[in-house]
Amino acid sequence: MTTAGRVHNFCAGPCTLPVSVLEEVRDEMLDFDGTGMSIIEASHRAPAYDAVHMDALTDFRDLADVPDDFTVLFLQGGATLQFAQVPMNLLADGESAGYVDTGAWGGKALADARLLADVYEAWSGADGGFRRMPASDEIQVSDGSRFLHITSNETIGGIRFPDYPEVDVPLVGDMSSDFLSRPIDWSRFDLVYGGAQKNLGPAGLAIVVVRTDLLGRSGRDLAAYLDYSTHASNDSMANTPPMFAIYVMGKVLRWMKASGGLVEFERRASERADLVYGAVDGSDGWYTSPVDEASRSHMNIVFRLPDEDLEKRFVAEAAEAGMVNLKGHRSVGGIRASVYNALAVDSVHTLVDFMGAFRAANA
Amino acid sequence: MTTAGRVHNFCAGPCTLPVSVLEEVRDEMLDFDGTGMSIIEASHRAPAYDAVHMDALTDFRDLADVPDDFTVLFLQGGATLQFAQVPMNLLADGESAGYVDTGAWGGKALADARLLADVYEAWSGADGGFRRMPASDEIQVSDGSRFLHITSNETIGGIRFPDYPEVDVPLVGDMSSDFLSRPIDWSRFDLVYGGAQKNLGPAGLAIVVVRTDLLGRSGRDLAAYLDYSTHASNDSMANTPPMFAIYVMGKVLRWMKASGGLVEFERRASERADLVYGAVDGSDGWYTSPVDEASRSHMNIVFRLPDEDLEKRFVAEAAEAGMVNLKGHRSVGGIRASVYNALAVDSVHTLVDFMGAFRAANA
Repeated sequence: MTTAGRVHNFCAGPCTLPVSVLEEVRDEMLDFDGTGMSIIEASHRAPAYDAVHMDALTDFRDLADVPDDFTVLFLQGGATLQFAQVPMNLLADGESAGYVDTGAWGGKALADARLLADVYEAWSGADGGFRRMPASDEIQVSDGSRFLHITSNETIGGIRFPDYPEVDVPLVGDMSSDFLSRPIDWSRFDLVYGGAQKNLGPAGLAIVVVRTDLLGRSGRDLAAYLDYSTHASNDSMANTPPMFAIYVMGKVLRWMKASGGLVEFERRASERADLVYGAVDGSDGWYTSPVDEASRSHMNIVFRLPDEDLEKRFVAEAAEAGMVNLKGHRSVGGIRASVYNALAVDSVHTLVDFMGAFRAANA
Repeated sequence: MTTAGRVHNFCAGPCTLPVSVLEEVRDEMLDFDGTGMSIIEASHRAPAYDAVHMDALTDFRDLADVPDDFTVLFLQGGATLQFAQVPMNLLADGESAGYVDTGAWGGKALADARLLADVYEAWSGADGGFRRMPASDEIQVSDGSRFLHITSNETIGGIRFPDYPEVDVPLVGDMSSDFLSRPIDWSRFDLVYGGAQKNLGPAGLAIVVVRTDLLGRSGRDLAAYLDYSTHASNDSMANTPPMFAIYVMGKVLRWMKASGGLVEFERRASERADLVYGAVDGSDGWYTSPVDEASRSHMNIVFRLPDEDLEKRFVAEAAEAGMVNLKGHRSVGGIRASVYNALAVDSVHTLVDFMGAFRAANA
């Protein structure tokens, strides 16, 4: 436990948030900003919420350095609904796009897109057990493709693109599990999306950043909610937005700006990742990383112990020592330490110390 | 202001929640149930959240007396996304359904459904300015219709179906603005849906209750999020659910059960509505109701003053006296007092007293 009775939370998402943000939310729960009501009781058309909402849009844009020719949307349904909304909004009848299948999430994006448009697999890591990201020259982009869809970081497999693929078409990126953990080179992207619930706030909010001139380009007659244009022309308040999640994310964004912005969060992510991978690599092979070194995620650090029994004990003893949610995803096993933006480096030091002690006791 | 510095909140939604619920949320914000973390930092796969989620599903079912052959789904995107999901999931290619256009929301449901299926307007209140609901024998249900879609209560127009239409096909109901304010005769419905943010909790959560044997019946290849079956087969945890909204709604549902359930909330709604309509009807025509008496909403009470200038002053002076969000929707003007489940009758007495004093001072 930390001093305030709080655990070290290594969950793959939703995950730990800054304590200062939670304290503000707590203190405002019965009366937000002198309105005499909670923010969750406020009209989304009221000035108090409008300021929260518009500030969150602005702060997201500032923090991520989103260029003026992109529109930021706050939506619902998670990245999962985006697997459908992206092809609906970006691909006209008969147009095609390539999808890179790098694991669980890349695969889901491709499966949904196949139902809605003429898309194809531009590369798959399935044969290699999804242990690495492809090099640019391995990705087969067909002539006439509108975009190439990538998953910047695979939460389950624990791999990431250290650099985005160099291809001749714009990229569309699902950045759910490393959103705003490093600067984004917007010149490479037509659209970026992600759920908020890992690096940025509570579950129930997805952020889509799309080139404004692509709104309406598919020419499809989409239902109101499914059409990006509906939300774009109403500052993401065409219908009642997920107000609480936006309110909390707004506080996280301000905390990130005050902490040094994305350059600093990229540095912190490297520091956290280096500590854990260092403990793995320095264990004389007792801890092992199942993924290619060049593709190692800086957000979801997957490693194995000599056997599954030891892994079970590792997870249990870590939990007793106040480090929770270290069990790997059921589909791959092992240990997974997710080290998102709000995780203090102190929590990582605690984990690394525990890794050393556990190995000493069990090797 | 109420004694705790809280206002009387007559917002059309989101709206006031029980103070006891807000106090619990506040007290649990840094440490939910001894987990050492907030509920908004918890994994949706963790036992602590799982209990919250499954209890909310069970309590919704208990409170609404949902029969065993219906499935309860917790989704995102509001009722607005349901305007698309309902026809996608319930209507196969070539099947038709009727829609009753009773105002802003009924009209939106119909407009989206038209893009997705062979639907038609079974009745429209447009010519009459949406001042009343139709009688059953005015609704034209074509042969072969799969269902008739109704909006149980129109939030903007301030009208409701006192009884649901008697037609020869099952009903599908958007109950967003009077959800769980009265018992539901499930034998009449194939599907009921609504946003949580008026009677039940924060924004960002929609509840769909659908006959289980209708899941998958449209035969369409739907993207994962858009297919009810995805959510039904995963207890609405196929992807990360809107956890905070579900957590708060769970508390509201428990509060409603402990307060006497839907029979009691129907009684309270009648009491609140009778008080306000009584003040209107007893004003010798100074306050007027623009809607047909038989269709008067028990949730959104719309009334007019002799002129718009007086209406502006009414709203402003009420706000000074701690009664907020009384301005009618911009599309219809006038005054709208929304009196949802969690609004204390004391707030309504305060409003009615103010109505009397304002009339005495200005008549």
